[in-house]
Amino acid sequence: MHDPLNAFCTHTTAYLKGATNGPLAGLKFAAKDLFDIDGHITGAGNPDWLRTHASAHRTAPVVQRLVDAGADMVGKTHTDELSRGILGENAHYGTPTNPRAPGRVPGGSSSGSAAAVAGGLVDFALGTDTGGSVRIPASFCGLYGIRPTHGRLPLDGMVGQAPSFDTIGWFARDADLLGRIGEVLLGIDLSTTRRPRHLIVAADAFAIAESATQAALAPAVEKVKALFDSHERRPVSATVPLSDWTAHQRAIQGREAWNTFGAWIDQTNPRFAFDISDNFLRGRDTSDAALAAARDFQAARRRELLALLGEDTILCLSTAPFPAPPLGQPRSTMWAQRNAISTLTTISATLGAPQLSLPLAAVDGLPVGLSILARPGADDVLLALARRVAAS
Amino acid sequence: MHDPLNAFCTHTTAYLKGATNGPLAGLKFAAKDLFDIDGHITGAGNPDWLRTHASAHRTAPVVQRLVDAGADMVGKTHTDELSRGILGENAHYGTPTNPRAPGRVPGGSSSGSAAAVAGGLVDFALGTDTGGSVRIPASFCGLYGIRPTHGRLPLDGMVGQAPSFDTIGWFARDADLLGRIGEVLLGIDLSTTRRPRHLIVAADAFAIAESATQAALAPAVEKVKALFDSHERRPVSATVPLSDWTAHQRAIQGREAWNTFGAWIDQTNPRFAFDISDNFLRGRDTSDAALAAARDFQAARRRELLALLGEDTILCLSTAPFPAPPLGQPRSTMWAQRNAISTLTTISATLGAPQLSLPLAAVDGLPVGLSILARPGADDVLLALARRVAAS
Repeated sequence: MHDPLNAFCTHTTAYLKGATNGPLAGLKFAAKDLFDIDGHITGAGNPDWLRTHASAHRTAPVVQRLVDAGADMVGKTHTDELSRGILGENAHYGTPTNPRAPGRVPGGSSSGSAAAVAGGLVDFALGTDTGGSVRIPASFCGLYGIRPTHGRLPLDGMVGQAPSFDTIGWFARDADLLGRIGEVLLGIDLSTTRRPRHLIVAADAFAIAESATQAALAPAVEKVKALFDSHERRPVSATVPLSDWTAHQRAIQGREAWNTFGAWIDQTNPRFAFDISDNFLRGRDTSDAALAAARDFQAARRRELLALLGEDTILCLSTAPFPAPPLGQPRSTMWAQRNAISTLTTISATLGAPQLSLPLAAVDGLPVGLSILARPGADDVLLALARRVAAS
Repeated sequence: MHDPLNAFCTHTTAYLKGATNGPLAGLKFAAKDLFDIDGHITGAGNPDWLRTHASAHRTAPVVQRLVDAGADMVGKTHTDELSRGILGENAHYGTPTNPRAPGRVPGGSSSGSAAAVAGGLVDFALGTDTGGSVRIPASFCGLYGIRPTHGRLPLDGMVGQAPSFDTIGWFARDADLLGRIGEVLLGIDLSTTRRPRHLIVAADAFAIAESATQAALAPAVEKVKALFDSHERRPVSATVPLSDWTAHQRAIQGREAWNTFGAWIDQTNPRFAFDISDNFLRGRDTSDAALAAARDFQAARRRELLALLGEDTILCLSTAPFPAPPLGQPRSTMWAQRNAISTLTTISATLGAPQLSLPLAAVDGLPVGLSILARPGADDVLLALARRVAAS
């Protein structure tokens, strides 16, 4: 395959021909190398994972649904190691090129999927989003990308990370196709979707974004506002800062990630980039007390926010605090950026809510995304709204 | 070079022809890939270290002394990553074969040097020993190996780890050659070395060894005893258990290793086997208070032990608690073994004292070493004693 962006894995030639007829016939897509394809080893972004696992015996149902709907699965794409990263740099396989931001990261962990769509190598691509892994590369690469409601899609045949947060999402270059994929995967009909009436502009979330990003997104926010009957600007989190949300999410996600991978790590002593090990060890060393406190905290936030986010209400926020950072930064810089990013991505992860990033702005030519977020289950509302925003 | 043992690095063809005349003329040796050779990159057992460093501008003085004494330096040998390991497994380059213990580790971190000597590929080899990295592979591979007095040899042109403990040591298949190398490197004359009179058999150290290893070493201990005027069996550490020595050494070594490599790690985010990162992070997270307590503890142990180890006294101990463990064990098993090993190797590291391992026994055919240890500065006494033991 022609792959000038280093988006695709070279260790597998996974290919699935789409059904002849179907709503996605004629489209090509890629799948992040966390999804099983029958007869191929799922590599998960780490050579020691690849080396210690056998070929999959079946294809992940989400991939199969797309193929059954007519789309050709043309390859598997690079991911941050075991989906544990948000910038998209992979020390083993190299970093996929961000076609919209030369010299900068593509975002991760669904890095290759975002690069492949942004570069026009495929029409759409599957990713996963535990703590931002679809939303952030969508923002950095100038794509539409959705993290659906937690639990809405089956995670079978996929290398998961942290069950409390793992979701499957997808990327497209336009809102129409993003919605068509949603109709196939979620079994919904966007032509009948209700229109939301009230918009909340998340004051605390926008305040986390750098001022240039805030300024760049302002016209897009106005455009979205115009589609609602009413709107208000208020904080998402009235009682505690969003940085607390991040800290508690990290406690749960870290411990769950260690639960998922710890036994394999112990058996294999795998090669990881240093920050991946650092992250795993923070999870391993998270106390039971911290974990219990985090679960209580999240339950309280869900109660508060679900009261705020009515059926007719949409939340609007900056997807990321800044455009794609440069490649190859020092680890301490990356860590600080990752923390800032997580302070925004934690909102939908904590709530289990769907979030959709729209590529509506740029800072010095570098894409930045505007996100819309709805209460759990309202994926259709977001997908339909994205189409209306794009058309407006 | 014919290298059936995977002892040598393939990323360099470093070779230095020895001087025509000299006490080591006609001998071939290898140097661990921590020593600089003019015109070659020092790889230090990690591909990202290799990738981010330029060629050395000069040859390490210790290597040069051997070449000036007539020996040919024929290649550089594998090491545990950045010398941070004791078993000899390298996730990037593979593990050198232990020719004396098939299916088992060679010991590390001077793994390739030990394998090359044990397998007869060279006559002798240079290693380094911070926390046991010459003594343990000597024991596991059935070799003579010495860790000299701390500070006795110049560490210039070498990738150090923890300055309070770093030393340069060497391996040979017989005690005579081990001594000849010592004469060249240390500038000593073993023909005039005094004979020690009193032997202490370290009861607490032997108690740490597995019973089969204790039993296997018993005849060797008797052989050594016979060369002394008097002997006694008593603990090295009367006031605190040796496991406390290890904990305090680890605090200092860990923090110093982070001081040595932390900036590079931050800049590079290198690929390490998981346990290497784990080890570095323990060092990074060691508190100043723990560090200060460790330095006080070590000073107290040095006062006690130097009072015990008079000019005429030699300490005798098991080099390792067991023979070479199997390859590819789970990380938690390795970690426990490493702790047990360190409880023996910490004695000379804490004291800055020389220690020499003699290959005098085997457990089910697997080599185990007996060590002799002297007060700092008495390297010549150990080298001369090793010859007498071998001849007896």
